[in-house]
Amino acid sequence: MLLSLLQHSSRSLLTLRTVQTLNKSFYSSQMAKRVAVVLAGCGVYDGSEIHEASAVLVHLSRGGATVQMFAPNVDQMHVVNHLKGEPSEEKRNVLVESARLARGNIQDLSKLSAKDHDAIVFPGGFGAAKNLCTWAVQGKDCSVNDEVKAALQAFHSEGKPIGLCCISPVLAAKVLPGCEVTVGIEKDSKYPDTAGTADAINQLGCKHVSKGVGESHVDEKNKLVTTCAFMCDAPIHEIFDGIGSMVQGNNTITGR
Amino acid sequence: MLLSLLQHSSRSLLTLRTVQTLNKSFYSSQMAKRVAVVLAGCGVYDGSEIHEASAVLVHLSRGGATVQMFAPNVDQMHVVNHLKGEPSEEKRNVLVESARLARGNIQDLSKLSAKDHDAIVFPGGFGAAKNLCTWAVQGKDCSVNDEVKAALQAFHSEGKPIGLCCISPVLAAKVLPGCEVTVGIEKDSKYPDTAGTADAINQLGCKHVSKGVGESHVDEKNKLVTTCAFMCDAPIHEIFDGIGSMVQGNNTITGR
Repeated sequence: MLLSLLQHSSRSLLTLRTVQTLNKSFYSSQMAKRVAVVLAGCGVYDGSEIHEASAVLVHLSRGGATVQMFAPNVDQMHVVNHLKGEPSEEKRNVLVESARLARGNIQDLSKLSAKDHDAIVFPGGFGAAKNLCTWAVQGKDCSVNDEVKAALQAFHSEGKPIGLCCISPVLAAKVLPGCEVTVGIEKDSKYPDTAGTADAINQLGCKHVSKGVGESHVDEKNKLVTTCAFMCDAPIHEIFDGIGSMVQGNNTITGR
Repeated sequence: MLLSLLQHSSRSLLTLRTVQTLNKSFYSSQMAKRVAVVLAGCGVYDGSEIHEASAVLVHLSRGGATVQMFAPNVDQMHVVNHLKGEPSEEKRNVLVESARLARGNIQDLSKLSAKDHDAIVFPGGFGAAKNLCTWAVQGKDCSVNDEVKAALQAFHSEGKPIGLCCISPVLAAKVLPGCEVTVGIEKDSKYPDTAGTADAINQLGCKHVSKGVGESHVDEKNKLVTTCAFMCDAPIHEIFDGIGSMVQGNNTITGR
Protein backbone atom coordinates (compact mmCIF):
# COMPACT_ATOMS: atom_id res chain seq x y z
CA MET A 1 0.00 0.00 0.00
CA LEU A 2 2.85 2.31 0.83
CA LEU A 3 4.35 1.52 -2.55
CA SER A 4 0.99 2.12 -4.20
CA LEU A 5 0.90 5.54 -2.61
CA LEU A 6 4.37 6.16 -3.96
CA GLN A 7 3.02 5.53 -7.39
CA HIS A 8 0.22 7.91 -6.48
CA SER A 9 2.76 10.55 -5.49
CA SER A 10 4.49 10.44 -8.80
CA ARG A 11 1.28 10.48 -10.85
CA SER A 12 -0.89 12.92 -9.03
CA LEU A 13 -3.63 12.89 -11.64
CA LEU A 14 -4.45 9.28 -10.95
CA THR A 15 -6.79 8.28 -8.20
CA LEU A 16 -5.56 5.82 -5.63
CA ARG A 17 -7.96 3.21 -7.00
CA THR A 18 -6.58 3.57 -10.50
CA VAL A 19 -3.09 3.29 -9.12
CA GLN A 20 -3.91 0.04 -7.39
CA THR A 21 -4.93 -1.51 -10.67
CA LEU A 22 -1.62 -0.42 -12.15
CA ASN A 23 0.29 -1.81 -9.24
CA LYS A 24 1.28 -5.06 -10.90
CA SER A 25 3.34 -3.29 -13.52
CA PHE A 26 4.80 -0.83 -11.04
CA TYR A 27 7.85 -2.74 -9.98
CA SER A 28 9.10 -3.45 -13.45
CA SER A 29 8.25 -0.12 -15.03
CA GLN A 30 9.32 2.42 -12.46
CA MET A 31 12.65 3.50 -11.09
CA ALA A 32 13.47 2.06 -7.67
CA LYS A 33 11.81 4.04 -4.93
CA ARG A 34 13.97 5.24 -2.07
CA VAL A 35 12.50 4.47 1.33
CA ALA A 36 13.81 5.60 4.72
CA VAL A 37 13.20 3.23 7.64
CA VAL A 38 13.50 4.69 11.15
CA LEU A 39 14.52 2.29 13.92
CA ALA A 40 14.37 2.70 17.69
CA GLY A 41 16.75 0.06 19.04
CA CYS A 42 16.69 -3.72 18.72
CA GLY A 43 14.23 -5.73 20.78
CA VAL A 44 10.51 -5.40 21.44
CA TYR A 45 10.64 -4.23 25.06
CA ASP A 46 13.15 -1.38 24.71
CA GLY A 47 13.69 -0.98 20.97
CA SER A 48 12.21 -1.73 17.56
CA GLU A 49 10.18 -4.92 17.35
CA ILE A 50 12.63 -7.13 15.49
CA HIS A 51 10.20 -9.14 13.39
CA GLU A 52 8.23 -6.07 12.35
CA ALA A 53 11.41 -4.34 11.23
CA SER A 54 12.57 -7.45 9.38
CA ALA A 55 9.18 -7.84 7.67
CA VAL A 56 9.28 -4.20 6.55
CA LEU A 57 12.69 -4.80 4.95
CA VAL A 58 11.63 -8.03 3.23
CA HIS A 59 8.51 -6.46 1.74
CA LEU A 60 10.32 -3.30 0.63
CA SER A 61 13.04 -5.42 -0.96
CA ARG A 62 10.50 -7.55 -2.79
CA GLY A 63 8.84 -4.37 -4.00
CA GLY A 64 12.12 -3.21 -5.51
CA ALA A 65 12.66 -0.29 -3.15
CA THR A 66 16.11 0.84 -2.05
CA VAL A 67 16.22 1.28 1.70
CA GLN A 68 18.28 3.51 3.96
CA MET A 69 17.93 3.01 7.70
CA PHE A 70 18.15 5.72 10.35
CA ALA A 71 17.95 5.97 14.15
CA PRO A 72 18.38 8.76 16.67
CA ASN A 73 21.82 8.94 18.27
CA VAL A 74 20.50 9.01 21.85
CA ASP A 75 20.51 6.74 24.89
CA GLN A 76 17.64 4.29 25.13
CA MET A 77 15.04 5.22 27.78
CA HIS A 78 16.28 2.08 29.51
CA VAL A 79 17.55 -1.41 28.76
CA VAL A 80 15.22 -4.35 29.37
CA ASN A 81 16.56 -7.83 30.04
CA HIS A 82 14.25 -9.65 27.63
CA LEU A 83 14.73 -12.98 29.41
CA LYS A 84 13.54 -11.68 32.77
CA GLY A 85 11.26 -8.96 31.40
CA GLU A 86 12.86 -6.46 33.77
CA PRO A 87 14.91 -3.29 33.31
CA SER A 88 18.64 -3.73 33.88
CA GLU A 89 21.27 -1.20 34.95
CA GLU A 90 22.93 -1.03 31.52
CA LYS A 91 22.99 1.90 29.15
CA ARG A 92 22.68 1.39 25.40
CA ASN A 93 22.52 3.80 22.48
CA VAL A 94 19.54 3.68 20.11
CA LEU A 95 21.63 4.13 16.95
CA VAL A 96 24.24 1.54 17.98
CA GLU A 97 21.61 -1.09 18.86
CA SER A 98 19.54 -0.33 15.76
CA ALA A 99 22.67 -1.08 13.73
CA ARG A 100 22.15 -4.75 14.68
CA LEU A 101 18.94 -4.78 12.65
CA ALA A 102 20.64 -2.85 9.84
CA ARG A 103 23.70 -5.14 9.68
CA GLY A 104 25.75 -1.99 10.28
CA ASN A 105 24.29 -0.02 7.37
CA ILE A 106 22.53 2.79 9.20
CA GLN A 107 22.84 6.54 9.69
CA ASP A 108 22.20 9.07 12.41
CA LEU A 109 18.61 10.32 12.10
CA SER A 110 19.95 13.88 12.17
CA LYS A 111 21.25 13.24 8.64
CA LEU A 112 17.84 12.31 7.21
CA SER A 113 16.52 14.67 4.53
CA ALA A 114 13.04 14.07 3.13
CA LYS A 115 14.30 15.29 -0.24
CA ASP A 116 16.50 12.19 -0.57
CA HIS A 117 13.63 9.73 -0.07
CA ASP A 118 10.24 8.93 -1.55
CA ALA A 119 8.65 7.51 1.60
CA ILE A 120 9.38 6.74 5.25
CA VAL A 121 8.46 3.77 7.47
CA PHE A 122 8.42 3.43 11.26
CA PRO A 123 8.31 -0.17 12.57
CA GLY A 124 6.83 -0.64 16.03
CA GLY A 125 7.94 -2.09 19.34
CA PHE A 126 8.15 -0.33 22.70
CA GLY A 127 11.22 1.54 21.42
CA ALA A 128 8.91 3.66 19.26
CA ALA A 129 7.02 4.66 22.41
CA LYS A 130 10.11 4.97 24.62
CA ASN A 131 12.94 6.26 22.43
CA LEU A 132 11.15 8.09 19.58
CA CYS A 133 8.60 9.68 21.90
CA THR A 134 7.55 9.36 25.54
CA TRP A 135 4.15 7.73 24.91
CA ALA A 136 5.04 4.69 27.05
CA VAL A 137 5.29 6.98 30.09
CA GLN A 138 3.02 9.93 29.28
CA GLY A 139 0.45 8.61 26.79
CA LYS A 140 -1.25 11.36 24.78
CA ASP A 141 0.63 14.03 26.72
CA CYS A 142 3.95 12.69 25.45
CA SER A 143 6.67 14.63 23.69
CA VAL A 144 8.13 13.46 20.37
CA ASN A 145 11.88 13.38 19.64
CA ASP A 146 12.69 16.55 17.65
CA GLU A 147 14.27 14.68 14.73
CA VAL A 148 11.35 12.26 14.51
CA LYS A 149 8.91 15.16 14.57
CA ALA A 150 10.85 17.02 11.88
CA ALA A 151 10.97 13.91 9.69
CA LEU A 152 7.22 13.31 9.95
CA GLN A 153 6.46 16.95 9.19
CA ALA A 154 8.85 17.05 6.23
CA PHE A 155 7.54 13.90 4.53
CA HIS A 156 3.98 15.03 5.22
CA SER A 157 4.49 18.51 3.82
CA GLU A 158 6.10 17.07 0.68
CA GLY A 159 3.14 14.71 0.21
CA LYS A 160 5.33 11.63 0.57
CA PRO A 161 3.82 8.44 2.05
CA ILE A 162 4.44 7.55 5.69
CA GLY A 163 4.05 3.97 6.93
CA LEU A 164 3.70 3.15 10.63
CA CYS A 165 2.89 -0.10 12.40
CA CYS A 166 2.08 -1.44 15.85
CA ILE A 167 2.35 1.44 18.37
CA SER A 168 4.17 3.79 15.95
CA PRO A 169 0.92 5.33 14.62
CA VAL A 170 0.79 7.35 17.87
CA LEU A 171 3.73 9.32 16.46
CA ALA A 172 1.50 10.47 13.59
CA ALA A 173 -1.38 11.12 15.98
CA LYS A 174 0.83 13.51 17.97
CA VAL A 175 2.52 15.27 15.04
CA LEU A 176 -0.18 15.35 12.32
CA PRO A 177 -3.41 16.77 13.78
CA GLY A 178 -6.63 15.18 12.59
CA CYS A 179 -5.03 12.21 10.88
CA GLU A 180 -6.55 8.71 10.68
CA VAL A 181 -4.69 5.64 11.88
CA THR A 182 -5.27 2.07 13.05
CA VAL A 183 -3.73 0.23 15.97
CA GLY A 184 -6.01 -2.81 15.63
CA ILE A 185 -9.58 -3.72 16.50
CA GLU A 186 -11.17 -2.10 19.53
CA LYS A 187 -12.92 -4.31 22.08
CA ASP A 188 -11.48 -7.57 20.75
CA SER A 189 -9.54 -9.76 23.17
CA LYS A 190 -7.00 -10.53 20.44
CA TYR A 191 -6.01 -6.85 20.63
CA PRO A 192 -5.54 -6.27 24.38
CA ASP A 193 -4.00 -2.77 24.19
CA THR A 194 -5.89 -1.39 21.21
CA ALA A 195 -8.93 0.10 22.96
CA GLY A 196 -6.91 2.26 25.35
CA THR A 197 -4.52 3.40 22.66
CA ALA A 198 -7.38 4.14 20.25
CA ASP A 199 -9.12 6.18 22.95
CA ALA A 200 -6.02 8.31 23.47
CA ILE A 201 -5.64 8.78 19.70
CA ASN A 202 -9.25 9.98 19.47
CA GLN A 203 -8.71 12.33 22.41
CA LEU A 204 -5.88 13.93 20.43
CA GLY A 205 -8.44 14.88 17.78
CA CYS A 206 -7.40 12.12 15.40
CA LYS A 207 -9.57 9.24 14.20
CA HIS A 208 -8.88 5.64 15.12
CA VAL A 209 -10.10 3.13 12.52
CA SER A 210 -10.44 -0.53 13.58
CA LYS A 211 -8.57 -2.86 11.23
CA GLY A 212 -7.50 -6.49 11.60
CA VAL A 213 -3.93 -7.74 11.70
CA GLY A 214 -3.93 -8.65 8.01
CA GLU A 215 -5.16 -5.23 6.90
CA SER A 216 -3.81 -1.70 6.74
CA HIS A 217 -5.63 1.61 6.90
CA VAL A 218 -4.93 4.32 4.35
CA ASP A 219 -5.45 7.97 5.26
CA GLU A 220 -5.42 9.26 1.68
CA LYS A 221 -5.44 12.93 2.65
CA ASN A 222 -2.34 12.61 4.80
CA LYS A 223 -0.78 9.73 2.84
CA LEU A 224 -0.49 7.63 5.98
CA VAL A 225 -0.59 3.82 5.90
CA THR A 226 -0.89 2.03 9.22
CA THR A 227 -1.27 -1.59 10.38
CA CYS A 228 -1.48 -3.02 13.88
CA ALA A 229 1.15 -5.80 13.68
CA PHE A 230 1.98 -7.13 17.19
CA MET A 231 -0.82 -5.06 18.76
CA CYS A 232 -2.66 -8.26 17.78
CA ASP A 233 -1.89 -11.52 19.51
CA ALA A 234 -1.49 -13.36 16.21
CA PRO A 235 0.92 -15.94 14.76
CA ILE A 236 4.05 -14.29 13.38
CA HIS A 237 3.22 -15.07 9.73
CA GLU A 238 0.00 -13.07 10.09
CA ILE A 239 2.02 -10.13 11.45
CA PHE A 240 4.33 -10.55 8.44
CA ASP A 241 1.40 -10.50 6.02
CA GLY A 242 -0.16 -7.46 7.70
CA ILE A 243 3.08 -5.56 7.23
CA GLY A 244 3.03 -6.75 3.63
CA SER A 245 -0.38 -5.11 3.40
CA MET A 246 1.12 -1.85 4.69
CA VAL A 247 4.05 -1.94 2.28
CA GLN A 248 2.69 -3.64 -0.81
CA GLY A 249 -1.07 -3.38 -0.52
CA ASN A 250 -1.83 -7.09 -0.45
CA ASN A 251 -4.55 -7.00 2.17
CA THR A 252 -5.03 -10.47 3.55
CA ILE A 253 -8.09 -10.29 5.70
CA THR A 254 -7.76 -13.05 8.22
CA GLY A 255 -10.95 -12.46 10.12
CA ARG A 256 -9.11 -11.48 13.28
CA MET B 1 11.73 -28.99 3.02
CA LEU B 2 12.30 -29.41 6.72
CA LEU B 3 8.57 -29.84 7.17
CA SER B 4 8.50 -32.32 4.30
CA LEU B 5 11.14 -34.34 6.09
CA LEU B 6 9.03 -34.22 9.20
CA GLN B 7 6.27 -35.88 7.27
CA HIS B 8 8.89 -38.38 6.15
CA SER B 9 9.88 -39.04 9.74
CA SER B 10 6.41 -39.93 10.78
CA ARG B 11 5.71 -42.18 7.79
CA SER B 12 8.92 -44.03 7.31
CA LEU B 13 7.58 -46.29 4.58
CA LEU B 14 7.10 -43.37 2.24
CA THR B 15 9.89 -42.09 0.07
CA LEU B 16 10.78 -38.43 0.30
CA ARG B 17 9.40 -37.90 -3.22
CA THR B 18 6.07 -39.39 -2.29
CA VAL B 19 5.97 -37.27 0.79
CA GLN B 20 6.55 -34.13 -1.21
CA THR B 21 3.50 -34.82 -3.29
CA LEU B 22 1.50 -35.20 -0.10
CA ASN B 23 2.84 -31.97 1.27
CA LYS B 24 -0.13 -29.83 0.36
CA SER B 25 -2.39 -31.75 2.66
CA PHE B 26 0.19 -31.93 5.40
CA TYR B 27 -0.66 -28.79 7.29
CA SER B 28 -4.35 -29.47 7.54
CA SER B 29 -4.19 -33.20 8.14
CA GLN B 30 -1.39 -33.57 10.64
CA MET B 31 -0.95 -32.51 14.22
CA ALA B 32 1.21 -29.43 14.66
CA LYS B 33 4.86 -30.31 14.52
CA ARG B 34 7.06 -29.13 17.38
CA VAL B 35 10.22 -27.44 16.22
CA ALA B 36 13.13 -26.27 18.39
CA VAL B 37 15.03 -23.19 17.16
CA VAL B 38 18.50 -22.60 18.62
CA LEU B 39 19.68 -18.99 18.79
CA ALA B 40 23.17 -17.59 19.39
CA GLY B 41 22.58 -13.98 20.42
CA CYS B 42 20.98 -11.10 18.53
CA GLY B 43 22.89 -9.39 15.72
CA VAL B 44 24.85 -10.69 12.74
CA TYR B 45 28.37 -9.87 13.95
CA ASP B 46 28.23 -11.42 17.43
CA GLY B 47 24.94 -13.33 17.53
CA SER B 48 22.20 -14.86 15.40
CA GLU B 49 21.57 -13.12 12.10
CA ILE B 50 18.33 -11.35 12.92
CA HIS B 51 16.62 -11.60 9.52
CA GLU B 52 17.49 -15.27 9.12
CA ALA B 53 16.04 -16.04 12.55
CA SER B 54 12.93 -14.01 11.82
CA ALA B 55 12.45 -15.72 8.44
CA VAL B 56 12.76 -19.14 10.08
CA LEU B 57 10.00 -18.20 12.53
CA VAL B 58 7.70 -16.78 9.82
CA HIS B 59 8.02 -19.88 7.63
CA LEU B 60 7.59 -22.30 10.54
CA SER B 61 4.52 -20.36 11.67
CA ARG B 62 3.03 -20.43 8.19
CA GLY B 63 3.68 -24.17 8.08
CA GLY B 64 1.66 -24.61 11.25
CA ALA B 65 4.58 -25.66 13.45
CA THR B 66 4.76 -24.83 17.14
CA VAL B 67 8.14 -23.36 18.00
CA GLN B 68 10.20 -23.34 21.17
CA MET B 69 13.39 -21.31 21.18
CA PHE B 70 16.59 -22.13 23.04
CA ALA B 71 20.04 -20.62 23.52
CA PRO B 72 23.08 -21.51 25.60
CA ASN B 73 23.38 -19.66 28.91
CA VAL B 74 26.97 -18.50 28.31
CA ASP B 75 28.78 -15.24 27.69
CA GLN B 76 29.09 -14.18 24.05
CA MET B 77 32.61 -14.61 22.63
CA HIS B 78 32.57 -10.82 22.47
CA VAL B 79 30.22 -7.91 21.82
CA VAL B 80 30.51 -6.09 18.49
CA ASN B 81 29.38 -2.48 18.12
CA HIS B 82 27.43 -3.00 14.90
CA LEU B 83 27.61 0.69 14.00
CA LYS B 84 31.41 0.83 14.06
CA GLY B 85 31.97 -2.83 13.17
CA GLU B 86 34.37 -3.14 16.09
CA PRO B 87 34.40 -5.19 19.30
CA SER B 88 33.48 -3.24 22.43
CA GLU B 89 34.42 -3.81 26.06
CA GLU B 90 30.94 -4.99 27.08
CA LYS B 91 29.90 -8.45 28.16
CA ARG B 92 26.58 -9.91 27.12
CA ASN B 93 24.95 -13.29 27.69
CA VAL B 94 23.87 -15.38 24.70
CA LEU B 95 20.57 -16.49 26.27
CA VAL B 96 19.65 -12.98 27.45
CA GLU B 97 20.36 -11.39 24.06
CA SER B 98 18.65 -14.22 22.16
CA ALA B 99 15.55 -13.44 24.25
CA ARG B 100 15.23 -10.24 22.19
CA LEU B 101 14.55 -12.32 19.09
CA ALA B 102 12.23 -14.59 21.07
CA ARG B 103 10.22 -11.73 22.63
CA GLY B 104 11.17 -13.26 25.97
CA ASN B 105 9.84 -16.74 25.22
CA ILE B 106 13.04 -18.76 25.30
CA GLN B 107 14.70 -21.43 27.41
CA ASP B 108 18.20 -22.42 28.44
CA LEU B 109 19.59 -24.85 25.86
CA SER B 110 20.48 -27.20 28.72
CA LYS B 111 16.74 -27.90 29.03
CA LEU B 112 16.32 -29.05 25.43
CA SER B 113 15.29 -32.68 25.01
CA ALA B 114 15.05 -34.10 21.49
CA LYS B 115 12.13 -36.23 22.69
CA ASP B 116 9.99 -33.11 23.07
CA HIS B 117 10.51 -31.92 19.49
CA ASP B 118 10.09 -33.21 15.95
CA ALA B 119 12.86 -31.14 14.35
CA ILE B 120 15.51 -28.53 15.16
CA VAL B 121 16.69 -25.42 13.27
CA PHE B 122 19.87 -23.36 13.63
CA PRO B 123 19.76 -19.89 12.02
CA GLY B 124 23.11 -18.40 11.00
CA GLY B 125 25.09 -15.26 11.77
CA PHE B 126 28.56 -15.02 13.28
CA GLY B 127 27.07 -16.02 16.63
CA ALA B 128 26.73 -19.58 15.33
CA ALA B 129 30.49 -19.58 14.62
CA LYS B 130 31.46 -17.68 17.79
CA ASN B 131 29.04 -18.74 20.51
CA LEU B 132 27.83 -22.20 19.42
CA CYS B 133 31.30 -23.30 18.31
CA THR B 134 34.70 -21.69 17.76
CA TRP B 135 34.71 -21.89 13.94
CA ALA B 136 35.20 -18.11 13.59
CA VAL B 137 38.57 -18.43 15.35
CA GLN B 138 39.71 -22.01 14.64
CA GLY B 139 37.95 -23.05 11.42
CA LYS B 140 37.76 -26.82 10.94
CA ASP B 141 39.77 -27.37 14.13
CA CYS B 142 37.05 -25.70 16.20
CA SER B 143 35.28 -27.13 19.22
CA VAL B 144 31.48 -27.23 19.46
CA ASN B 145 29.53 -26.16 22.56
CA ASP B 146 28.67 -29.36 24.48
CA GLU B 147 24.93 -28.67 24.55
CA VAL B 148 24.86 -27.88 20.83
CA LYS B 149 26.78 -31.07 20.09
CA ALA B 150 24.45 -33.13 22.27
CA ALA B 151 21.40 -31.62 20.58
CA LEU B 152 22.68 -32.36 17.07
CA GLN B 153 23.59 -35.93 18.03
CA ALA B 154 20.25 -36.55 19.72
CA PHE B 155 18.07 -35.30 16.84
CA HIS B 156 20.30 -37.16 14.38
CA SER B 157 20.16 -40.43 16.26
CA GLU B 158 16.37 -40.18 16.53
CA GLY B 159 16.11 -39.56 12.79
CA LYS B 160 14.59 -36.13 13.27
CA PRO B 161 15.23 -33.41 10.66
CA ILE B 162 17.88 -30.73 11.31
CA GLY B 163 17.80 -27.42 9.45
CA LEU B 164 20.83 -25.13 9.30
CA CYS B 165 21.48 -21.97 7.31
CA CYS B 166 24.28 -19.54 6.48
CA ILE B 167 27.41 -20.58 8.45
CA SER B 168 25.53 -22.95 10.79
CA PRO B 169 26.03 -25.99 8.50
CA VAL B 170 29.62 -26.12 9.82
CA LEU B 171 28.10 -27.33 13.10
CA ALA B 172 26.77 -30.40 11.29
CA ALA B 173 30.07 -30.84 9.44
CA LYS B 174 31.90 -31.03 12.78
CA VAL B 175 29.41 -33.23 14.65
CA LEU B 176 28.00 -35.55 11.96
CA PRO B 177 30.88 -37.16 10.03
CA GLY B 178 30.38 -37.60 6.30
CA CYS B 179 27.28 -35.43 6.04
CA GLU B 180 26.36 -33.27 3.04
CA VAL B 181 25.67 -29.54 3.37
CA THR B 182 25.60 -26.35 1.34
CA VAL B 183 26.95 -22.92 2.25
CA GLY B 184 26.36 -21.45 -1.22
CA ILE B 185 28.00 -21.59 -4.64
CA GLU B 186 31.75 -22.02 -4.80
CA LYS B 187 33.79 -19.67 -6.99
CA ASP B 188 30.98 -17.15 -7.50
CA SER B 189 31.62 -13.55 -6.49
CA LYS B 190 28.13 -13.30 -5.04
CA TYR B 191 29.26 -15.84 -2.41
CA PRO B 192 32.57 -14.37 -1.18
CA ASP B 193 33.13 -16.71 1.79
CA THR B 194 31.67 -19.91 0.36
CA ALA B 195 34.76 -21.39 -1.32
CA GLY B 196 36.94 -21.26 1.80
CA THR B 197 34.18 -22.60 4.03
CA ALA B 198 33.33 -25.35 1.54
CA ASP B 199 37.00 -26.34 1.39
CA ALA B 200 37.15 -26.70 5.17
CA ILE B 201 33.92 -28.72 5.17
CA ASN B 202 35.38 -31.08 2.56
CA GLN B 203 38.59 -31.40 4.59
CA LEU B 204 36.48 -32.61 7.50
CA GLY B 205 35.39 -35.55 5.33
CA CYS B 206 31.98 -34.07 4.60
CA LYS B 207 30.64 -33.11 1.18
CA HIS B 208 29.92 -29.53 0.20
CA VAL B 209 27.17 -29.18 -2.43
CA SER B 210 26.90 -25.86 -4.31
CA LYS B 211 23.40 -24.42 -4.12
CA GLY B 212 22.05 -20.95 -4.86
CA VAL B 213 20.48 -18.60 -2.33
CA GLY B 214 16.94 -19.62 -3.30
CA GLU B 215 17.62 -23.33 -2.91
CA SER B 216 18.29 -25.76 -0.09
CA HIS B 217 20.23 -29.01 -0.08
CA VAL B 218 18.73 -32.13 1.46
CA ASP B 219 21.02 -34.84 2.85
CA GLU B 220 18.36 -37.55 2.96
CA LYS B 221 20.52 -40.06 4.81
CA ASN B 222 21.22 -37.68 7.68
CA LYS B 223 17.94 -35.72 7.39
CA LEU B 224 19.83 -32.44 7.11
CA VAL B 225 18.42 -29.46 5.21
CA THR B 226 20.79 -26.54 4.58
CA THR B 227 20.62 -23.21 2.72
CA CYS B 228 23.22 -20.49 2.37
CA ALA B 229 21.16 -17.39 3.30
CA PHE B 230 23.44 -14.38 3.90
CA MET B 231 26.51 -16.30 2.68
CA CYS B 232 25.14 -14.84 -0.58
CA ASP B 233 25.21 -11.12 -1.20
CA ALA B 234 21.55 -11.06 -2.21
CA PRO B 235 18.53 -8.82 -1.53
CA ILE B 236 16.86 -9.67 1.76
CA HIS B 237 13.70 -11.06 0.15
CA GLU B 238 15.81 -13.66 -1.66
CA ILE B 239 17.36 -14.66 1.68
CA PHE B 240 13.82 -14.91 3.05
CA ASP B 241 12.73 -17.15 0.18
CA GLY B 242 15.82 -19.36 0.51
CA ILE B 243 14.97 -19.95 4.15
CA GLY B 244 11.43 -20.72 3.01
CA SER B 245 12.99 -23.36 0.80
CA MET B 246 14.77 -24.84 3.82
CA VAL B 247 11.66 -24.86 5.98
CA GLN B 248 8.83 -25.45 3.54
CA GLY B 249 10.46 -26.88 0.44
CA ASN B 250 9.44 -24.15 -1.96
CA ASN B 251 12.66 -23.94 -3.92
CA THR B 252 12.80 -20.65 -5.77
CA ILE B 253 15.78 -20.88 -8.03
CA THR B 254 16.88 -17.34 -8.67
CA GLY B 255 19.85 -18.08 -10.86
CA ARG B 256 22.29 -16.66 -8.34
